[in-house]
Amino acid sequence: MKLRRRTEPDLIAAIRRDFAVRRPGLALGLGDDAAAVRPGKEPFLLTTDLLVEGSHFIRSLNPPFYLGRKSLNVNISDIAAMGGRPRYALLGLGVPRTIPKAWLEEFFAGIRNAARERGVALIGGDLSRSDKILISVTLVGEGKRFISRSGARPGDALFISGFPGRAQAGFELLAQGVRFGRDKDSDALIRAFLDPVPQVELGMDLARRSAASAMLDMSDGLSVDVHNLCRESGCGAEVEEKAIPIAAELLRLRKSHVRDALYGGEDYGLLFSAAPSQLAKVRGLSKKFNLTRIGRLTRSRDIILVKRSGRKVPFKPGGFRHF
Amino acid sequence: MKLRRRTEPDLIAAIRRDFAVRRPGLALGLGDDAAAVRPGKEPFLLTTDLLVEGSHFIRSLNPPFYLGRKSLNVNISDIAAMGGRPRYALLGLGVPRTIPKAWLEEFFAGIRNAARERGVALIGGDLSRSDKILISVTLVGEGKRFISRSGARPGDALFISGFPGRAQAGFELLAQGVRFGRDKDSDALIRAFLDPVPQVELGMDLARRSAASAMLDMSDGLSVDVHNLCRESGCGAEVEEKAIPIAAELLRLRKSHVRDALYGGEDYGLLFSAAPSQLAKVRGLSKKFNLTRIGRLTRSRDIILVKRSGRKVPFKPGGFRHF
Repeated sequence: MKLRRRTEPDLIAAIRRDFAVRRPGLALGLGDDAAAVRPGKEPFLLTTDLLVEGSHFIRSLNPPFYLGRKSLNVNISDIAAMGGRPRYALLGLGVPRTIPKAWLEEFFAGIRNAARERGVALIGGDLSRSDKILISVTLVGEGKRFISRSGARPGDALFISGFPGRAQAGFELLAQGVRFGRDKDSDALIRAFLDPVPQVELGMDLARRSAASAMLDMSDGLSVDVHNLCRESGCGAEVEEKAIPIAAELLRLRKSHVRDALYGGEDYGLLFSAAPSQLAKVRGLSKKFNLTRIGRLTRSRDIILVKRSGRKVPFKPGGFRHF
Repeated sequence: MKLRRRTEPDLIAAIRRDFAVRRPGLALGLGDDAAAVRPGKEPFLLTTDLLVEGSHFIRSLNPPFYLGRKSLNVNISDIAAMGGRPRYALLGLGVPRTIPKAWLEEFFAGIRNAARERGVALIGGDLSRSDKILISVTLVGEGKRFISRSGARPGDALFISGFPGRAQAGFELLAQGVRFGRDKDSDALIRAFLDPVPQVELGMDLARRSAASAMLDMSDGLSVDVHNLCRESGCGAEVEEKAIPIAAELLRLRKSHVRDALYGGEDYGLLFSAAPSQLAKVRGLSKKFNLTRIGRLTRSRDIILVKRSGRKVPFKPGGFRHF
């Protein structure tokens, strides 16, 4: 972690102290021009995400502890979407001169908390001044057999993990002024938005068994993410609206629960395809994880939504915009 | 390269096309949740930098082609400072909705140009909307023997490569309204600021020969960077003012050339120490690179500047602020 132009020596010292870690593969951690990591036998997986205040989060809605966790976890989710094991993180952080010390402490506490939870070591970073808060995380994972977005074939079944639309509903509750503590259902939805859970174990289990032909993590919402998987795999899909699992709290609190589930983003469940020969493996994993078959991949490039009535309509990529 | 919420599908397609690359170690490049890189035998070196409009660059002063090059090259410079070989890059880019298409094209042309020049493959990224331009680059390098900041010992000699202060002078010329084409001297200084050259070959040669005991790249200016090296190595230094090499154009154009050289940042030359037993190796490299011995490391923790008069004064960490 270097700091340009010596703006925050105390903060840097605290970060280096709090994030100091020794582990077998790490030859050199925070504090130098670059970190050094000894390669193992598995490929390295690398991903980066940029979170911008006002575009991806709002300071008044995203408490810094959860924002720290989420910044790391959305990147961990990308590693999970490859079936990999998250290992190392680098953090670029831009903050205004006026940022309260408590904000920074809580943000870094969130980063540390999520890092420990997932066995990730923070090995590098860069701190800057900026008008708005900027968070750039790069995550390094490892994975012997990784699952790309492009391996799906016509005839494969399409699955999702978890219950889509909860994060969208949670965001809207927050935007309406609801905070933690109103009721259990609201809390669950707000938590889904503020503190998404990357599906690392599921991703690794699918990769280990070569059960999935293609996979991604759902950040943009089901409609967009189905398009993404199909585009990369060169196929189409039929998604059964009646198969989409709706969380109980979503059903109770939101009239728009179907729309939430089809178009709401930031749930970070996994969307994956499985060849017919692999379905038994997926069924096996269903005992451990919440998996739902929502449709199938087709030779035609069209992405179709089969309504409850049986009517087939184009499943247009749409999305809520949060901010 | 994912794009959140499908804001720029054409741009993403162009980037994937323009940056498509096949190389032995790269198992999966742009377009998936993460890139996959097969490990070689050498440690991976990882570094990240965040560049923020208004803090690290100004749109009116930094032409996008050079800004693209510089964004990559300042990270390559961190790999050079470890003695490593730059290999892969990930890019997080935030741009305002109003950004001209030509700006983006030239910025990416600069990224591509610098990447090709240095054998670097762009393997991942994230595009976002933001009010100001934000550039986050993560660079992955490889290096069998890397040189940290912490290996210097009292009695080691202190060297720099190149001529410090040129970038600072170039920035000030630009801020005064001078542009390329006024005269050869100004052009050289402006270029030093807009288009710094990472010292990759020098870094690798020093590492290969185990000639340097500690090393970093000078981004904050000599005074700060000497402090950084000494702090990490737990020693002090005496720097001879009269030994600091002053570029001819700096001497001709700037009355403040000594101050420029002592305190001006962003030159990205290498600052390194060498044990007495290694000095012959450094002398050997002096035939190929522009190296100057500027002082020595001491047991005392003090950082001393020996003035031309022979008077010793504290070499306080100071720096110009560009913006």
